[in-house]
Amino acid sequence: AINVYVIGLGPVGRQVIRDLQLLNNLHCQNYQVDFRIVGVFDRTGSVISKQTDLALSSEVVQSILSWKENGASLADHTNGSGSTIDVLSSMLGANTTIIDVSASNDTIPVLLNGIQTGSTVVLANKKPISCRWSTYDAMVQGPGILGIESTVGAGTPIIACLDRLLAAGDRIDAIEGVLSGTLGYIATELEKGNSYSDSIKSAHTLGFTEPDPRDDLSGTDVARKALILARRCGVKNLHMENIAIESLFPNILQGITTTDFLKETSSLDDGFRQKIVNAQNQGTVLRYVARIEFDWGMHEYKSTPEAKVSVGLVPVPSSSPFYSLTGTDNLVSFTTRTYSDSPLVVRGKGAGVEVTSNGVIADMVTCARSCSMPNGEVHRHD
Amino acid sequence: AINVYVIGLGPVGRQVIRDLQLLNNLHCQNYQVDFRIVGVFDRTGSVISKQTDLALSSEVVQSILSWKENGASLADHTNGSGSTIDVLSSMLGANTTIIDVSASNDTIPVLLNGIQTGSTVVLANKKPISCRWSTYDAMVQGPGILGIESTVGAGTPIIACLDRLLAAGDRIDAIEGVLSGTLGYIATELEKGNSYSDSIKSAHTLGFTEPDPRDDLSGTDVARKALILARRCGVKNLHMENIAIESLFPNILQGITTTDFLKETSSLDDGFRQKIVNAQNQGTVLRYVARIEFDWGMHEYKSTPEAKVSVGLVPVPSSSPFYSLTGTDNLVSFTTRTYSDSPLVVRGKGAGVEVTSNGVIADMVTCARSCSMPNGEVHRHD
Repeated sequence: AINVYVIGLGPVGRQVIRDLQLLNNLHCQNYQVDFRIVGVFDRTGSVISKQTDLALSSEVVQSILSWKENGASLADHTNGSGSTIDVLSSMLGANTTIIDVSASNDTIPVLLNGIQTGSTVVLANKKPISCRWSTYDAMVQGPGILGIESTVGAGTPIIACLDRLLAAGDRIDAIEGVLSGTLGYIATELEKGNSYSDSIKSAHTLGFTEPDPRDDLSGTDVARKALILARRCGVKNLHMENIAIESLFPNILQGITTTDFLKETSSLDDGFRQKIVNAQNQGTVLRYVARIEFDWGMHEYKSTPEAKVSVGLVPVPSSSPFYSLTGTDNLVSFTTRTYSDSPLVVRGKGAGVEVTSNGVIADMVTCARSCSMPNGEVHRHD
Repeated sequence: AINVYVIGLGPVGRQVIRDLQLLNNLHCQNYQVDFRIVGVFDRTGSVISKQTDLALSSEVVQSILSWKENGASLADHTNGSGSTIDVLSSMLGANTTIIDVSASNDTIPVLLNGIQTGSTVVLANKKPISCRWSTYDAMVQGPGILGIESTVGAGTPIIACLDRLLAAGDRIDAIEGVLSGTLGYIATELEKGNSYSDSIKSAHTLGFTEPDPRDDLSGTDVARKALILARRCGVKNLHMENIAIESLFPNILQGITTTDFLKETSSLDDGFRQKIVNAQNQGTVLRYVARIEFDWGMHEYKSTPEAKVSVGLVPVPSSSPFYSLTGTDNLVSFTTRTYSDSPLVVRGKGAGVEVTSNGVIADMVTCARSCSMPNGEVHRHD
């Protein structure tokens, strides 16, 4: 059996827990892996199985799910252990999987500890692999196994497809992606003739944006995903500061409240309307695209290319796979030595609790069935 | 190290061998797997390393590649062993990978033997998994590991994406696919206003069709791929006879020579022209689509759904991802519980030596890093 610890009990964390319970038979029968939820953590505390290797009972899990749905803290839960994630450091090893679906930097030390002691780490949290290069590098060095599908495209198998290209030694020349469901939705609204300010307000009302919509509109979230894709391809020493990021609002609107920001956006309507008209006059549409261009130098098979990374609003011609993309779907195209004239394209839901949980669980199964081999060690499942 | 045997030395087999040699360092460094080509087989004979675990020398491999490029048989090669694939049965085990890139049924006994003794089997050959259900079932029962990516979509990661949906316990409701580069090309030519007969002739001349184009036009090849996808989703006891297949020529043209067939196709031009016009009048385009509709009954998570499978020419509206598909690209859409309103879509090259080899090699790496677990056994890499 594999001991599973879940960090983060927001909507995604709760869905992962529900799915793992529902799928336990299927995972045992079809994949010979038995995932047991033995501990859960939120920002305030945790509930941890009293006995190692013994799953939390369904009653306790149900009560935790209801507790969190009602907005309460684990610190106050009857079964609360009083411990924070630091306690995890004493529970790691080859038969342990840590799932991080928080949005925090605070989990990094425990995750690194997990990787170094042979645990599997599965992330929806982008922070641990989009912060400093040295942290990323330590996260992927093993001997533990790292699953990162749900950090890009909410679990749509973008990383899985990229990993296969890399395993086949294909030379990745360019990756282009619409990687934000929120910005995709806004682009679609603008195209329909709605104003910039109205588009943001409806995205905000529908819950498609972060609580502060500037977190999406700044492009930082998309840049983090582009950084993760570039690093996955072997680009070293690349940081957020190396990415050219186009923000969809001027700097002057950064220092005000969210409410004031939502009022001020109407001052940007004319500018965006003009951009849309200009694009349409050229037969193009505007998409917020992440673009990574690789330079492999002389060595087609060297594993450390250079890359130029940019994210921003670009006009897209009708020949592009991005042209027909609407709504909150994500789409990534890989141009490679093999896919040179026509790229490999993956398109799917780019946001949502279910698809993110799907990605986490597919990663868990894949990692559980992978041999951890950097030291010739084998990840055993007993 | 992993001992690799290659069955089939056509263009794909030779590309796999070249790629494996070129990528050996990358695979050792990044994936800790050392693939050693220890034997190669064609229809007539084989060249096998004299010493188990010792790779064939690059000189011998080079001479085999040239030998086969010149159309000669392995039976006549200086280093020929005089053995056919049956000899493989004594060379199997956990550190062995058999690659079957032939198009033959004759390999099935050896492949089954491989699977049963814990070898990894990687296929581009569709036959072993699209013939009788009982053979398919035996192929997937392990303890060996089976890689089948290159049997559908020439290596574009369609199976890999499907496998992730299945691991995540997503309920697959429908799969639709344009799975023939040849028929995609012909659809594009028809749309351009070219006649049916001319489209077939140019596809034939360009080498996009089988030597006898009826092998593509009959729909059998597409049906085999649909069968493989349906079986992968857990559909049991499904056979080729259960698939509704629309052939693109009448039965009466079956019993004649290829040359005569190519002459006779012009009699079908008017019929196809009318089909195209009818489709266009309804705002649609014609695509040769494989369609699998699943019925999961009451049990959302049971692993044995029923399925209706059909392949044929269908009118596609502009809202469909198939509408903008042109040329030889393949495209598959998965409609699932999670991807319900907007399907998960994978698009990429559906034919070609390089992409097929890519799929084989990505499968080899994935399988080599997977633990074979049905009996609690672990696939070791020493």
